[in-house]
Amino acid sequence: MSEVYIGIDLGGTFIKVGCFDSQLKLLARASTPTEAEKDAKVVIENMAKAAEQSVAEAGFSMADVPAVGLASPGPAKYSEGIIEAATNFPTFRNIPIRKMLSDRLGGKTIVFENDANVACFGEFTAGAGKDVDDMVFFTLGTGIGGGIINKGKLLAGVGDNAAELGHIIIYPDGRLCNCGQRGCVEASASATNTAKRAAEAVEKGQPSSLKKVLDEKGEITCKDVYDHLKAGDKLARQITDETAKALALVCINMLHTTEPKRIVFAGGMIAAGEILLSRIKDYFNEHIWNLKKETVDICFATLGEDAGIIGAAALAKQAVE
Amino acid sequence: MSEVYIGIDLGGTFIKVGCFDSQLKLLARASTPTEAEKDAKVVIENMAKAAEQSVAEAGFSMADVPAVGLASPGPAKYSEGIIEAATNFPTFRNIPIRKMLSDRLGGKTIVFENDANVACFGEFTAGAGKDVDDMVFFTLGTGIGGGIINKGKLLAGVGDNAAELGHIIIYPDGRLCNCGQRGCVEASASATNTAKRAAEAVEKGQPSSLKKVLDEKGEITCKDVYDHLKAGDKLARQITDETAKALALVCINMLHTTEPKRIVFAGGMIAAGEILLSRIKDYFNEHIWNLKKETVDICFATLGEDAGIIGAAALAKQAVE
Repeated sequence: MSEVYIGIDLGGTFIKVGCFDSQLKLLARASTPTEAEKDAKVVIENMAKAAEQSVAEAGFSMADVPAVGLASPGPAKYSEGIIEAATNFPTFRNIPIRKMLSDRLGGKTIVFENDANVACFGEFTAGAGKDVDDMVFFTLGTGIGGGIINKGKLLAGVGDNAAELGHIIIYPDGRLCNCGQRGCVEASASATNTAKRAAEAVEKGQPSSLKKVLDEKGEITCKDVYDHLKAGDKLARQITDETAKALALVCINMLHTTEPKRIVFAGGMIAAGEILLSRIKDYFNEHIWNLKKETVDICFATLGEDAGIIGAAALAKQAVE
Repeated sequence: MSEVYIGIDLGGTFIKVGCFDSQLKLLARASTPTEAEKDAKVVIENMAKAAEQSVAEAGFSMADVPAVGLASPGPAKYSEGIIEAATNFPTFRNIPIRKMLSDRLGGKTIVFENDANVACFGEFTAGAGKDVDDMVFFTLGTGIGGGIINKGKLLAGVGDNAAELGHIIIYPDGRLCNCGQRGCVEASASATNTAKRAAEAVEKGQPSSLKKVLDEKGEITCKDVYDHLKAGDKLARQITDETAKALALVCINMLHTTEPKRIVFAGGMIAAGEILLSRIKDYFNEHIWNLKKETVDICFATLGEDAGIIGAAALAKQAVE
């Protein structure tokens, strides 16, 4: 008898769903607008319909689904299954999302987890970490999300908020972060803040081919920084180096904390490719201790945007086993 | 039928041993010089004799001992039971210490762990962390050692070197640490480096009542700093504040990493008392994010120097259960 697992990635704009076989091979996918501005019931109905659609497309019925994985952005009380309040879901107030989705799907087991943790678990199960047991994961986007795998399991923390790795402070009294702290790695090295630092430098008059971009578009994106880096712009190189150094420092700190075998970077910024990865490794080697030789691998994620649906399905499968 | 557990704390100068009942109540203790400069066989014989002595004094025989816990300073291959080379044991080269001690004690199960991890487990089992499941531990001495308890277990890492928390970098390109890195929390905030920073400031001409100490003794100890702080010396206050801030920053970083319920400081420096603890809490509250209210407890250890023997016995007991 075959069974299939559903992974749901609940984003602020889109809901993405995958239906996977028991080997976590993707059989079908579905996607629908979240309609986060509407009532929670609408959002849950959208998730349920997309889930049902993906299962039908894969040639199965909901009776073949032992469990569903659901990834959502934090903060949330994941172990209680409740979103109290979340930036991306303005109408959500103390929504028992796990129970509501389970009820809508006829009492299915729902595994509810933080989206960065879920993407981490996806890479661990089927991507850049599939051959190791201990891994640290960073996703470089608007912010920096994190996940920690210890002996094959996600590290949860006492209140489900472990691995908020973007808020590790590396420059005390440094740049102000959206979280209210100063000097978080996120405040320097997220995709958004990498671009922002470039714009600030241009505005301060540092010479750069990025000035034309800022003048014409009114903003600089992270992709602009890497495009101009590849074209030889000096400021783009400096901005990239600062990002790489910040990420290397946080790699060193994680090595001394949970001691992973592999550190995986994901998110839009890794499109920069080897030019970024090699600089992270350079700074790591320059700043790491010499008490013993370290052999941690630093690499990029391989699953792209599917890490969320794969990770959610993998967590559903793990919960049943 | 009763059984007893032995905890051995192998230091560079002294071996300390405790014999504990199954509730981890201390029944008898023994202590002997390590004789680390001699052959490993001598050190092992010293440990074994002290263990046998403590058991006899408690009124039991070695047949009543299901397992022995052994704590030693790192680096070592703990899961393999081998000390390759260690600063405090100059003659040790690839010593299979776990097997040698087990053989000497008639094949007993020996649990071998890093001394900071063992002290952490001691405080977790019977001290400042006995009512929580998730804890982070720092010992403030010559260096800064660390331990992490996650869901009731020591977090080990892929190569038994997790929780080297003293080497978390908080001031990139800052003070040089003995480990070769710059800006480790240990380089600012260990007992030794707290005292050293005071001496450096006095030597640079900062006015302080500590100048007399330096002139008369040729050095300043951490105790001197706190004594002069209590007497109202301004430099001693500045040095203490810098130590407290560094420790608070590393507390914030650990909160965002493994998210403990409690953070426990141990080691000689905590003799400073409330005047240090309250400053750590002040800096923590000043620098922590405002995304949500944090309720982690920051406190001092309660077991003193017995944390090692208690932790080692507790690990032995856990291994048998």
